[in-house]
Amino acid sequence: MTLSIQALYDRLHLALAVPDDAEIHGVSTLEQAGSRDLCFAEDASQADAVASSAAALVLVGETFPEVVGKRLLRVAEPRNLFFEIALWFVPVAESQGIHPAASVHPTADLGEDVEVGAGVVIDADARIGSGSRIGAGSYLGAGVEVGADCLIGVNVSILRDSTLGDRCVLHPGVRIGGDGFGFRWDGTAHRKIPQLGRVVIEDDVEIGCNSCVDRATLGTTRIGRGTKIDNLVQVAHNVGIGAHSILVSQSGVAGSSTLGQGVVVAGQVAISDHVTVGDGARIGGQAGVVKDIPAGVAVFGTPARPVKQALRESAALVRLPALLKQVERQQQAIDRLERRLADLGGGSSSRPLAPSSEDVVSPGTVSGTETD
Amino acid sequence: MTLSIQALYDRLHLALAVPDDAEIHGVSTLEQAGSRDLCFAEDASQADAVASSAAALVLVGETFPEVVGKRLLRVAEPRNLFFEIALWFVPVAESQGIHPAASVHPTADLGEDVEVGAGVVIDADARIGSGSRIGAGSYLGAGVEVGADCLIGVNVSILRDSTLGDRCVLHPGVRIGGDGFGFRWDGTAHRKIPQLGRVVIEDDVEIGCNSCVDRATLGTTRIGRGTKIDNLVQVAHNVGIGAHSILVSQSGVAGSSTLGQGVVVAGQVAISDHVTVGDGARIGGQAGVVKDIPAGVAVFGTPARPVKQALRESAALVRLPALLKQVERQQQAIDRLERRLADLGGGSSSRPLAPSSEDVVSPGTVSGTETD
Amino acid sequence: MTLSIQALYDRLHLALAVPDDAEIHGVSTLEQAGSRDLCFAEDASQADAVASSAAALVLVGETFPEVVGKRLLRVAEPRNLFFEIALWFVPVAESQGIHPAASVHPTADLGEDVEVGAGVVIDADARIGSGSRIGAGSYLGAGVEVGADCLIGVNVSILRDSTLGDRCVLHPGVRIGGDGFGFRWDGTAHRKIPQLGRVVIEDDVEIGCNSCVDRATLGTTRIGRGTKIDNLVQVAHNVGIGAHSILVSQSGVAGSSTLGQGVVVAGQVAISDHVTVGDGARIGGQAGVVKDIPAGVAVFGTPARPVKQALRESAALVRLPALLKQVERQQQAIDRLERRLADLGGGSSSRPLAPSSEDVVSPGTVSGTETD
Repeated sequence: MTLSIQALYDRLHLALAVPDDAEIHGVSTLEQAGSRDLCFAEDASQADAVASSAAALVLVGETFPEVVGKRLLRVAEPRNLFFEIALWFVPVAESQGIHPAASVHPTADLGEDVEVGAGVVIDADARIGSGSRIGAGSYLGAGVEVGADCLIGVNVSILRDSTLGDRCVLHPGVRIGGDGFGFRWDGTAHRKIPQLGRVVIEDDVEIGCNSCVDRATLGTTRIGRGTKIDNLVQVAHNVGIGAHSILVSQSGVAGSSTLGQGVVVAGQVAISDHVTVGDGARIGGQAGVVKDIPAGVAVFGTPARPVKQALRESAALVRLPALLKQVERQQQAIDRLERRLADLGGGSSSRPLAPSSEDVVSPGTVSGTETD
Repeated sequence: MTLSIQALYDRLHLALAVPDDAEIHGVSTLEQAGSRDLCFAEDASQADAVASSAAALVLVGETFPEVVGKRLLRVAEPRNLFFEIALWFVPVAESQGIHPAASVHPTADLGEDVEVGAGVVIDADARIGSGSRIGAGSYLGAGVEVGADCLIGVNVSILRDSTLGDRCVLHPGVRIGGDGFGFRWDGTAHRKIPQLGRVVIEDDVEIGCNSCVDRATLGTTRIGRGTKIDNLVQVAHNVGIGAHSILVSQSGVAGSSTLGQGVVVAGQVAISDHVTVGDGARIGGQAGVVKDIPAGVAVFGTPARPVKQALRESAALVRLPALLKQVERQQQAIDRLERRLADLGGGSSSRPLAPSSEDVVSPGTVSGTETD
Repeated sequence: MTLSIQALYDRLHLALAVPDDAEIHGVSTLEQAGSRDLCFAEDASQADAVASSAAALVLVGETFPEVVGKRLLRVAEPRNLFFEIALWFVPVAESQGIHPAASVHPTADLGEDVEVGAGVVIDADARIGSGSRIGAGSYLGAGVEVGADCLIGVNVSILRDSTLGDRCVLHPGVRIGGDGFGFRWDGTAHRKIPQLGRVVIEDDVEIGCNSCVDRATLGTTRIGRGTKIDNLVQVAHNVGIGAHSILVSQSGVAGSSTLGQGVVVAGQVAISDHVTVGDGARIGGQAGVVKDIPAGVAVFGTPARPVKQALRESAALVRLPALLKQVERQQQAIDRLERRLADLGGGSSSRPLAPSSEDVVSPGTVSGTETD
């Protein structure tokens, strides 16, 4: 898209003091901007970067210093406004309609302005809402329903009976509706438990490259409205995720677990099966959740525990090697005190004070298990 | 599939006391069942759910209470029988044969009743056993062999010379036969070690969405008979996995490691290279296996260690912050005892008892490293 | 490829004492070799394996013992030379040109000898260098640039404006240029931050199956020259990775982090966002990097810390359960010493020595939290 500075001010309902017909062709960082780019500065520390940038226009905060020779637009939240405007510049190719190299089943029902890429296969009774786009090489199984204005990337698989709401975005390689991982040992082999449920993805969900959402054994695996899922994430059978949650890359949720609304799951987190995570809980990177997490609680570590506790234990662990040595010295001191007290006539103790055979804290062990 | 209750009893070799021609159209949960669904109840705690369910027929245990107005079928293992019957209802579309938009090399050899989806590419000398189905958009490289009655999902890649046994199931996005990750630093760059081996997958193996099994550098990467692999799992070059093992989602096995039969690898486990895991070993979620695991042993944690030990250490760690404080107080007590004993005429100790500079256990340090 | 032993010696500029026209058809392990295979032995411990191997020719070290009836070729580094020769035997099919079932946009620019597989889609203004091969079912978006002699596997997605250097290898299912994971909570929903940057992959980079490299929000996500990435790895938006680094399977690098040259990232490592990892740093398996790592340092654990420290803490943790018991016994000893000293007339202590309510180290707690 191309837009004059005048037109940009008009769209923002702002008055432009000095007329300016220079054109904006895109958005960029201050460092990489060309003379037709819009940029923003976080704060006054970037004043030099603004001065040396080639940008046509820079969004800045209201107290940003003046920069000679630069057109600045002062606003309350330059970063947020920048990304609002940036959305105007996202390249959106015109719909190409149904590619001749796509295979669309005659019983499939495609809405208006649906785009279907080359090599796409759409099976019987699938329904696609108006304005949705299906990327090249993707597969939509029998009975799949895709809402309106969805963007299904290339090489995506959506298996039978899965349903997506409106405005969902699936990035390349996403797999929706694969079989849940369920087997039963019959004494000689793992027998497959048939996976007869389905996947429901509500409105405004986004799912990153190569992530997987398995169908339910019976019933439904559900991703709530507005939830955003990063790349390479695993969502197992019968999981329910509430609205507006976040799952960062390479995290996984095992079978039948339930996440509330507004949950934040950081990267490489594992959530065990049949666990409940309350609304607004936050789970730190690489945590292993093995039991329920109450609403609003932040956890960390494996097994996952409240962040304060995990950090306290982590800090204490750093001091453990020195503690082992100190306790050993204390043992020696106690032994000496005992002996001296006996010399003074204190009599024999009711229980021997020497380390028992259970003790691992002895000088030999110390040097034997340490690594430096 | 549709089946009258009479026909269902007949197939199970059971007598139906009162004739019933009502039809079963599918299986479901008690909560979601319609009037033509078969359900099951785990135990008597679900009696109310049975009473309020619309299900046509409910499998229950032999001591399940009577429920007025409901047709119950009493059996020894209702859950297991339910999933046996459920298998009858798995939708199996009729074979569509070779899709005209597939590219099958003239030297490829396809058995009877093979189905090949749209956009599939089958390269030279590939062989596919009778009754197997290849999903849309999948690729089978030169010399690939697929046994009989396999289900290869959509968007799957099976590279040159890989072989699959009978009745294997590969879910969408599986990659078989990618190059092993092998490089050699030559002083200026990582030189590629050519990957000339292959992958052998035995009968009845199932592999989940977007999982990867790399070809051997030389020789064979092998997945044993009946082993089941979940989504997003990594199996590296020259790995050998025995029969009837289980690898849960996002776990990974590094190069040249060997797993025995009946091994269970939980989610997000990492197994290092050149490690041997014995038959029947069980590896807990997120564990990091860096050395051999004997047969039958259950391990947990990073580095992986016997579960009892790991849990004991984990429980002890919870108490470590308080322990640090207690040892500090004991130090003060010992110092006081020393002083008082000296006052009593006990003489000087053979070794100073004051903490050495190695000690990190001092009040200042305590408050300095804690986080709350 | 087939090569006589004479021709093989000629290519290595070696003289063959006794003429030998036997042919080498391939390379293999000593155990699996047929009579026309080349093998190598690591050291003299494999002398028996050499004797019983059917191999036509075995590369051995200069001091390897003679083996009657076997043709040995003595060289300084048998393993390295073996893999050099093995490269000659990597099967390279002749270029098939542009498959008729590919969809190549008329504005795309393909160099000489480019191969494009069936079902491939190449969008507007894409450029592909001479000698590159694009596997079946792959997608190259608008404006994508691929250098010369690249191998793009099957079912790969390279999205708009991404660029690859020369001799890059992408294995099946790789996703380049997916949107970075960026959202902004506006009080009612996660608003998408548009992802307008791109991905630059320099020369000689190799990326394993189903790995993902996201485009930058603004600017560039960059993978440096000669870097090798394994399967199922995540590289987030705006990450920069230096030359000749290694990322092992299932590792992940979060947004805006920077890795230097020659960094080694082991399997299942997580690197947080906005972190800097110095040249030559080595990060152990499953580590969680949450702050900068200086050049050349080896780290391990979550949170990642120097390997020596992590191992020392890990070894100390093993001894913690026994330490808890020992400290408890010491407490009893101190209490007894106090009492006996008081009996001797030492008077009262300035501070009570009994454990305070903060102490978790008491006999009841010990037995209550242990698991065996």
